[in-house]
Amino acid sequence: VPDTDDRPLVLVTPAPVERSRIFAESAWDRLNELFRVVEVRADDDELLDRLLPKAFAVVGQPDLPKARLDAATALRAILNVEGNFYPNVDYPTAFARGVRVLGCGPAYGQAVAEMAVGLALDLARGISREDRAFRAGRERYLAGRTADSVLLRQSPVGLIGFGNLGRSLLPILKGFETTIRVYDPWLPQSLIAQLGLVPASLEETLAESQFVFVLAAVTDTNQRLLGGPQLSLLRPGARLVLVSRAAVVDFDALLEAVASGRILAAVDVWPEEPMPADHPARSLEGLVLSPHRAGAIPAAFTTIGEMVCDDLELLAAGLPPVRMQAAAPELVGRYRNRPVTSHE
Amino acid sequence: VPDTDDRPLVLVTPAPVERSRIFAESAWDRLNELFRVVEVRADDDELLDRLLPKAFAVVGQPDLPKARLDAATALRAILNVEGNFYPNVDYPTAFARGVRVLGCGPAYGQAVAEMAVGLALDLARGISREDRAFRAGRERYLAGRTADSVLLRQSPVGLIGFGNLGRSLLPILKGFETTIRVYDPWLPQSLIAQLGLVPASLEETLAESQFVFVLAAVTDTNQRLLGGPQLSLLRPGARLVLVSRAAVVDFDALLEAVASGRILAAVDVWPEEPMPADHPARSLEGLVLSPHRAGAIPAAFTTIGEMVCDDLELLAAGLPPVRMQAAAPELVGRYRNRPVTSHE
Amino acid sequence: VPDTDDRPLVLVTPAPVERSRIFAESAWDRLNELFRVVEVRADDDELLDRLLPKAFAVVGQPDLPKARLDAATALRAILNVEGNFYPNVDYPTAFARGVRVLGCGPAYGQAVAEMAVGLALDLARGISREDRAFRAGRERYLAGRTADSVLLRQSPVGLIGFGNLGRSLLPILKGFETTIRVYDPWLPQSLIAQLGLVPASLEETLAESQFVFVLAAVTDTNQRLLGGPQLSLLRPGARLVLVSRAAVVDFDALLEAVASGRILAAVDVWPEEPMPADHPARSLEGLVLSPHRAGAIPAAFTTIGEMVCDDLELLAAGLPPVRMQAAAPELVGRYRNRPVTSHE
Amino acid sequence: VPDTDDRPLVLVTPAPVERSRIFAESAWDRLNELFRVVEVRADDDELLDRLLPKAFAVVGQPDLPKARLDAATALRAILNVEGNFYPNVDYPTAFARGVRVLGCGPAYGQAVAEMAVGLALDLARGISREDRAFRAGRERYLAGRTADSVLLRQSPVGLIGFGNLGRSLLPILKGFETTIRVYDPWLPQSLIAQLGLVPASLEETLAESQFVFVLAAVTDTNQRLLGGPQLSLLRPGARLVLVSRAAVVDFDALLEAVASGRILAAVDVWPEEPMPADHPARSLEGLVLSPHRAGAIPAAFTTIGEMVCDDLELLAAGLPPVRMQAAAPELVGRYRNRPVTSHE
Repeated sequence: VPDTDDRPLVLVTPAPVERSRIFAESAWDRLNELFRVVEVRADDDELLDRLLPKAFAVVGQPDLPKARLDAATALRAILNVEGNFYPNVDYPTAFARGVRVLGCGPAYGQAVAEMAVGLALDLARGISREDRAFRAGRERYLAGRTADSVLLRQSPVGLIGFGNLGRSLLPILKGFETTIRVYDPWLPQSLIAQLGLVPASLEETLAESQFVFVLAAVTDTNQRLLGGPQLSLLRPGARLVLVSRAAVVDFDALLEAVASGRILAAVDVWPEEPMPADHPARSLEGLVLSPHRAGAIPAAFTTIGEMVCDDLELLAAGLPPVRMQAAAPELVGRYRNRPVTSHE
Repeated sequence: VPDTDDRPLVLVTPAPVERSRIFAESAWDRLNELFRVVEVRADDDELLDRLLPKAFAVVGQPDLPKARLDAATALRAILNVEGNFYPNVDYPTAFARGVRVLGCGPAYGQAVAEMAVGLALDLARGISREDRAFRAGRERYLAGRTADSVLLRQSPVGLIGFGNLGRSLLPILKGFETTIRVYDPWLPQSLIAQLGLVPASLEETLAESQFVFVLAAVTDTNQRLLGGPQLSLLRPGARLVLVSRAAVVDFDALLEAVASGRILAAVDVWPEEPMPADHPARSLEGLVLSPHRAGAIPAAFTTIGEMVCDDLELLAAGLPPVRMQAAAPELVGRYRNRPVTSHE
Repeated sequence: VPDTDDRPLVLVTPAPVERSRIFAESAWDRLNELFRVVEVRADDDELLDRLLPKAFAVVGQPDLPKARLDAATALRAILNVEGNFYPNVDYPTAFARGVRVLGCGPAYGQAVAEMAVGLALDLARGISREDRAFRAGRERYLAGRTADSVLLRQSPVGLIGFGNLGRSLLPILKGFETTIRVYDPWLPQSLIAQLGLVPASLEETLAESQFVFVLAAVTDTNQRLLGGPQLSLLRPGARLVLVSRAAVVDFDALLEAVASGRILAAVDVWPEEPMPADHPARSLEGLVLSPHRAGAIPAAFTTIGEMVCDDLELLAAGLPPVRMQAAAPELVGRYRNRPVTSHE
Repeated sequence: VPDTDDRPLVLVTPAPVERSRIFAESAWDRLNELFRVVEVRADDDELLDRLLPKAFAVVGQPDLPKARLDAATALRAILNVEGNFYPNVDYPTAFARGVRVLGCGPAYGQAVAEMAVGLALDLARGISREDRAFRAGRERYLAGRTADSVLLRQSPVGLIGFGNLGRSLLPILKGFETTIRVYDPWLPQSLIAQLGLVPASLEETLAESQFVFVLAAVTDTNQRLLGGPQLSLLRPGARLVLVSRAAVVDFDALLEAVASGRILAAVDVWPEEPMPADHPARSLEGLVLSPHRAGAIPAAFTTIGEMVCDDLELLAAGLPPVRMQAAAPELVGRYRNRPVTSHE
């Protein structure tokens, strides 16, 4: 890092995310043009500590306890590129210092929303089930096995949790003219109503909806929010799509409800990943199984890199970031999502 | 049929469609309240010939040559409930007589549109493919197998044919902010442009689209419209969804394009139904197989019954029908869809 | 008309509409390229009678009694470019002969819909009233005179009549997330509900709506549909927009309701045109006055010419017309709109 | 304020806004149920200073220099209910303390957006101009004076500035299928493109648009952004709607462009309010004059009260506010909007 370079210093330490996954070549070039960029390996504490005092921004989620933040006197922003806020950063110090703490959650919104709708339509029509049957020579043509097919159009939909995912879902669901009930205890009813949605209790949302999308992140208060008693409120034939985190559901109760034939479900997030090889979920007819693929697609990853470039450029120009999501001081300590580790 | 009943006489002869499939109990009751209804079995020519002279309307698609129409002096409407117009009716005579010839095509629009989007999202994200892998214990979590995943949002979409199905697709696609090219040689470009779509040639539609929906009915001029040369225009990685009729595609060329890995496709309509048990399509990884299920769902069938009631009630009141689709005199003889027979 | 020209013969006799108003130069050139075109003056019966036997189509609304139609053995279409169907055509003969009778109503849909929304927003916010006050030096800034201002968003809207105008209004109203009640006795409730609207009685539509759009054409049964008793059902502060025909309203009762301050109204169609110079409507504060301008704009007129070209080209190719509106045999004799005469 | 009341203390000092204007009775009751509420008159510094040390939140925009904030040790939020941030608050201290600084800007978004569209449609069709003519007995019926009428549908639209107002406009403009160019130097192009809009330079936005909406707040860098040279880029016949602040426009140049007949404009915000009685703007035919009424309507005011209740309730529960807008530390010192004073 030459001293004569007066561009702001940006430390890039994205582990466990691979740098090349989130920065397309063009974004990486752009970042290096605008900033002095130094990549810091996850285990190179020495380099991190040496450069932090001059750093304008940190891209990644390294440990940033008070001592490190105190040393980072020029720091203006911490840009998390993993998707979850963990307790390895002294957030109160960062906020008091005016250091922007930004998350990349919105990058996944569209990818998860489209997958959620794809899973819902699969459940509505038995797409993957009948594809399997066709491959096995057991297909039934025309109305031979459509008795449980339903339309999404004008049907009642329920959203459990209404954050980035819910907001990305809305424009898509609008095309189906659905009535949408929303349960989110962190939002006032007025906000939900203003969007043309129906604020509702958890119970009402479950009981009145033909399609239920579980979109809530895990917090200190919502684990196993959907237990057996709650799931029993679902209508016979309801379709449940789980794309946020498995911990908000009593997973055994969910599988039981599917196994009994009372509901159909699509699951993208699992209590263990990988799931045990002999787990009975693998052979449930009423289940669509997706191995945590809803958000992890190329377009979402490279969006993160673009967001980082965009917001760093704004910050360097003295403007507020607009693409990543500012961490809420009230909430940043309340999430309980586990780190997502790669199984590739 | 008592002579003292002065309600208009409606003959119901829906074969090969089952009457109870299209008339929910409430619709059937309503029909019987408004009209004198007589059900006529498909093979009961004698009854048909006896009642036709007094019939106000025929619900179904029996043979109606000139002689029969000439005898049916009170006939005001023929309501086809099967979905295709066949040459067993003397249409010119009907039109000259002012007999309304109505089709139930719009009843299937929403069902097919939702299925088409479900299939497109399956192709976009590998939903059924990865469900199969999960069941076989071969799942890959997170980005392990999402390299070919793409978003529908803001991607270029092509529609081959723009009739009822295309119109039902539009509101759904709007939620994805796609650019939509339309090829339909029976429509002026201005009509397409006024809807906010891009009129295009077949070649441009194929070459420029990430997602292609084949929606054209079979006519006297479009069989094998999509042959090998046309399919070779598709982008690598294009997704093709075929939900109208197999005959508009060179099926072998399509399967070859999928087998080569150049494109992914979802097929709901087949050159033979059932397909041979040992057909190689059954094991193609890049194919989503659906046994002609896109339209044949309960909500579509019962919509037909409601449409029949609604339009007969209007006609009896001296008003034009608005729910079924009037046959175009210019086109009614040009369709080449084969009868869909039940394989249940 | 040279005999060696085998292009179909099209007679253009648009009076009282001026030919150059509906045919932009490009459309006129296109028409003349595709067809042998002969312009026939309104009073040149001799020419009309001489050419009719060879005519493929007539563009305009000349008298076409049975004798003339019988002589017009090659006639395939009558394209009305004035906007209303009058009893000067023997429609039953045309229909029996398979002659297409087409109207240009849809050309006006968007123009009237945008005007209707503009008038509604004017009423919602007092735009023209406060512009007048500003010009007179009587303006009040900020909340000085906004006590009666209301939002359109999420407010209840009522449509009286749901034809071309209503359909053009829908996409615009969608942007305001309104609840829309529809009263139209010629449509089944199911059709209205399928569009996401609420079928309602006239009384309910009037009583429950903050904004009421009167969109019904005049027929044999709906004159003075909105009389004093009906208007008295409107909520205090309701906004009524009249853009179809004055005859569906008891005009004196309407003005009285406005004069009393109970409702606000915008009127584009009048019982007499021009209105008497001393008519009290001219000074009503709660009225927005528009001299029948909602549809009569350049973009609507030239759309008619394009529609004519498009549909004639389709008809000449043996395809059904898709841009103009086929006259319904059941209705063509029931309209009572008066001819609109030009006052320029 | 009884000491035994352990509800959080909220000081309400909304001057120059009247308390009853923003708090409907129900909102006021709700606020008083949830909190100990004390109203503080604008000039009662003594009371303010006495209560600040125990205050949980301040609703209003009193002077809050460092000394006061230092004394307000329990303060969690400052809720501005006037609409603009002024330099009478020591924002850096508030941010360092983690005091939420919230603005009510979003409350006005829908009201201004609907007014802006109403003004645009007035300009598109001459609604107020022809209403004036009708009242003066100079009306022209039908196409008599519609030569300059244009449609909004599918026309090019430009937005100058894209904040709360722009976001509220979007859903409405969507109903017109417009192409929307956006100029906003504080936003990355990617954000604009992701919304389906076209990022553009100021010059391109002006030159390519049929309708231009000026939505930018006044900042330290954009005063007279639209000067004579910029306005000269507008197309002949362009419609300009100014609803944010007059200072972003060279007002004389704007009036000149209107007076010359080259463009039409609607103005809701003025360089002086009230404008001089003899100002020539008052008689310009091509101008729609609106005395700063776009946002100041009952529904917007009472929304502010609801937002205050909602966000205070969230904050008291340890949750982040979601309805008001958090002040951006980077921008809060850069606005140059003048206080809006009441002229009633």
